Amino acid sequence: MTGLYPDTRNIMNKSFHMSPDEFRKNAEAVVEWIARYQENVSKFPVLSQIEPGEVYAAFPEHPPQRGEPFEQVLRDLDEKVMPGITHWQSPNFYAYFPSNNSGPSILGDLLSSGIGVQGMLWATSPACTELETRVLDWLVEMLGLPSTFLSSGSGGGVIQDTASSATLCALLAARERATNFASNEVGCDGTLVAYTSCHAHSSLEKAVKIAGIGKKNLRLVDVDEAFAMRPEALERMVEADRRAGKKPFLVMATVGTTSSNALDPLGAIGGIARKHGLWFHVDSAMAGTAALCPELRWTQKGVEQADSYVFNPHKWMFTNFDCSVFYVADRKMLIETLSVLPEYLKNQATMAGAVFDYRDWHIPLGRRFRALKLWLLLRHYGVEGLQHHIRRHVELAQEFLQWVKADERFEVMAPAPLNLVCFRLKGSDEENQALMERLNQSGKIYLSHTKLNGKFTLRLCVGQAQTEREHVGAAWELIRSESGNRVIE
Amino acid sequence: MTGLYPDTRNIMNKSFHMSPDEFRKNAEAVVEWIARYQENVSKFPVLSQIEPGEVYAAFPEHPPQRGEPFEQVLRDLDEKVMPGITHWQSPNFYAYFPSNNSGPSILGDLLSSGIGVQGMLWATSPACTELETRVLDWLVEMLGLPSTFLSSGSGGGVIQDTASSATLCALLAARERATNFASNEVGCDGTLVAYTSCHAHSSLEKAVKIAGIGKKNLRLVDVDEAFAMRPEALERMVEADRRAGKKPFLVMATVGTTSSNALDPLGAIGGIARKHGLWFHVDSAMAGTAALCPELRWTQKGVEQADSYVFNPHKWMFTNFDCSVFYVADRKMLIETLSVLPEYLKNQATMAGAVFDYRDWHIPLGRRFRALKLWLLLRHYGVEGLQHHIRRHVELAQEFLQWVKADERFEVMAPAPLNLVCFRLKGSDEENQALMERLNQSGKIYLSHTKLNGKFTLRLCVGQAQTEREHVGAAWELIRSESGNRVIE
Repeated sequence: MTGLYPDTRNIMNKSFHMSPDEFRKNAEAVVEWIARYQENVSKFPVLSQIEPGEVYAAFPEHPPQRGEPFEQVLRDLDEKVMPGITHWQSPNFYAYFPSNNSGPSILGDLLSSGIGVQGMLWATSPACTELETRVLDWLVEMLGLPSTFLSSGSGGGVIQDTASSATLCALLAARERATNFASNEVGCDGTLVAYTSCHAHSSLEKAVKIAGIGKKNLRLVDVDEAFAMRPEALERMVEADRRAGKKPFLVMATVGTTSSNALDPLGAIGGIARKHGLWFHVDSAMAGTAALCPELRWTQKGVEQADSYVFNPHKWMFTNFDCSVFYVADRKMLIETLSVLPEYLKNQATMAGAVFDYRDWHIPLGRRFRALKLWLLLRHYGVEGLQHHIRRHVELAQEFLQWVKADERFEVMAPAPLNLVCFRLKGSDEENQALMERLNQSGKIYLSHTKLNGKFTLRLCVGQAQTEREHVGAAWELIRSESGNRVIE
Repeated sequence: MTGLYPDTRNIMNKSFHMSPDEFRKNAEAVVEWIARYQENVSKFPVLSQIEPGEVYAAFPEHPPQRGEPFEQVLRDLDEKVMPGITHWQSPNFYAYFPSNNSGPSILGDLLSSGIGVQGMLWATSPACTELETRVLDWLVEMLGLPSTFLSSGSGGGVIQDTASSATLCALLAARERATNFASNEVGCDGTLVAYTSCHAHSSLEKAVKIAGIGKKNLRLVDVDEAFAMRPEALERMVEADRRAGKKPFLVMATVGTTSSNALDPLGAIGGIARKHGLWFHVDSAMAGTAALCPELRWTQKGVEQADSYVFNPHKWMFTNFDCSVFYVADRKMLIETLSVLPEYLKNQATMAGAVFDYRDWHIPLGRRFRALKLWLLLRHYGVEGLQHHIRRHVELAQEFLQWVKADERFEVMAPAPLNLVCFRLKGSDEENQALMERLNQSGKIYLSHTKLNGKFTLRLCVGQAQTEREHVGAAWELIRSESGNRVIE
């Protein structure tokens, strides 16, 4: 057909696009840049040492009017951007929870960018939906999760951006089940009440605010000495709320809290949820990955009662951000509450009900082909490869725990069932905060803190993909030496 | 420190990770794969011809126990995944709105994956926050948006995943301003009312449901013959709701509706919003990009009154999904309603109030370094490169419009101010639907439909990065020939 509609006006058929050959050349430079970064990442100060405003000020006030050579941009990356990077991929990164990448997941994500499909509907790229369904079915088996989460039954899984969004979706599905919200078409009436432990992640507080439930209607249940939810306290609260005319509708349990990796007793909490008709959501954002190893599955005992479940491959499972996996045992309520079907999205497959349209499973409409990075990851490592590295991290954390226990200047602040150790100097909060700041400002390691039993506590999480014995050993030596001049009380 | 803590137990220091050298090799294969895809994308059937379940069935039931060679995975990509792809990057893609990628944005996103930072807080990678702030300040200038959106004042911009999420955030900020929701800590009381046109995107309906406002409290305002909101109808509705004891709190106007690219009159709507104290949100998800060209800025006249604004570089601005830009004129309400600050996220920079922590600007907590792809895009094209291609798309759509007008078998169903043409055969809905299905099943082009004035209408949107005159001409020839045997009424 070319030539039938020639450009007869005086407009140059000019293109500013990067041609495939230019793409080959520039991509080679970027790949080499990343490979070198991988080789050298441990040499950078882990925590960026920059002051607020420095990076912003390093760039011109006005946008570029004309295109610039790619090499210049890569130079600016090194000179202006990298000083403002905190190196999450450094083996000396122990802060928060990890956010790992890996070769196969980076390349899977690159393929996703290159193919560039937008999978809001099954029809807009069937493979984007169906590979996701397949890979998430695999993960149910790999993690020993309940078969109710498989796509073959009433449930199913979907990739979300973060556990915060997934937890919001769990709350919305629970609200739907409790109130027939979407079909009633009315707003919340202020009577719904949600429950979680006072050590749970702030995402539920955020979700409760977003969904119009109101922070006042979120109950934070007391914890035991291991910072795990007390089921009997939960049940007392639920019963008191019922007596007061409230409608308890959701409880969230955590496998591995952010503060201390505490393990809520899923069995007991699930039993209470069932008895009182509450939606049972399980947040395993970081620790869920541990279930890849059968010997660590005791951490999620009772998960078979869950109505919904979230874990983040982008934390501990070497999948680059973002990739949060969300399962429901019954997808009906989720779809019911999130579905909208304007004329311009109607199509045969959707109308026939023969397919999943994942845009009805989360907040955004559009969606990227994120299953590719999970798929490449699983094919590259295999189950055994992932198990190996997870076991290794747990072992290293357990060794670190023994080192801390053996040094009388320190105290361990919480049980360490997996890969997080919470500890502090026996001393004031100020001394501990000062220690943490010295460690982080050294650039040699980066760790973060929490408060446990009211005390400033250091958190060291072994979960970065490249972290090995030598790194954890060096971290401990540094912590010891930075605490060296302290007089022991 | 290496050597101090040798691995003394009988565990192999084995690694399943992809080494930097393996990464170089595999990345080269992926880059070559993508470059070839770019060269050949126009040869694939645009709309995937596969049946539901085919892709799912092509993969094994159980996950891989052992890792597999990378080449095998790429072979499976070709054989099992690609038949299930609908090619959004084909120059023959005219459906929905575009979702473009481009060389520089793909490589920016690759760098983001490789650097692998998680920018939830300023402190967790200052550059991730500050480059985003800088690039979004540039875009305010590039698009002629109000200076209230600049970070230097009370407002600012943030990258979100999609316009659906951004619109939800606008609604939450509006709710906050109307009710002091976060500080009151209570749920919604069912009195808040939101407004948009009956041609607006379904995202506001979704947001209203999510936020607990209730679908019953969303008013769909009548439109004029160009499918643009009637401001006088809006004002009548607001006044009637006030009289009935309701609290009107938000109006969303659209620059370029999804159905027909209708342009709501921002000036008049903004005036009503100000007069009645409503939050004024502007959805320019696709058409916002047109404002790169000064001669097209008339489409957003009145935007200076907006409290918030969203446009998607991942649609028409050659930035691979996901990248939706959200601006607020006053960031206080947004942060107020979305902020949570648990102990484990506290840090000096945040406590001093010296920085933006973007996790308080959207639903997710974690966030990827998405500014990199926008930055590489702007540096590569420059303002003039982007303008060139946007102008070209508008010209091509306008030419197509003239061809349709000149053929008496067809009727144009809506004004075509930019790059979308809505048209139909003069005939029944069934004939038009059958025509669309013939066209899409041919694999030669892909377009989608809507209903305008109750009639099944074809939508042809010229916006894919590579679409040139020859493609649009071929599309029109195909449409003509597939309509060729019709007797003209």
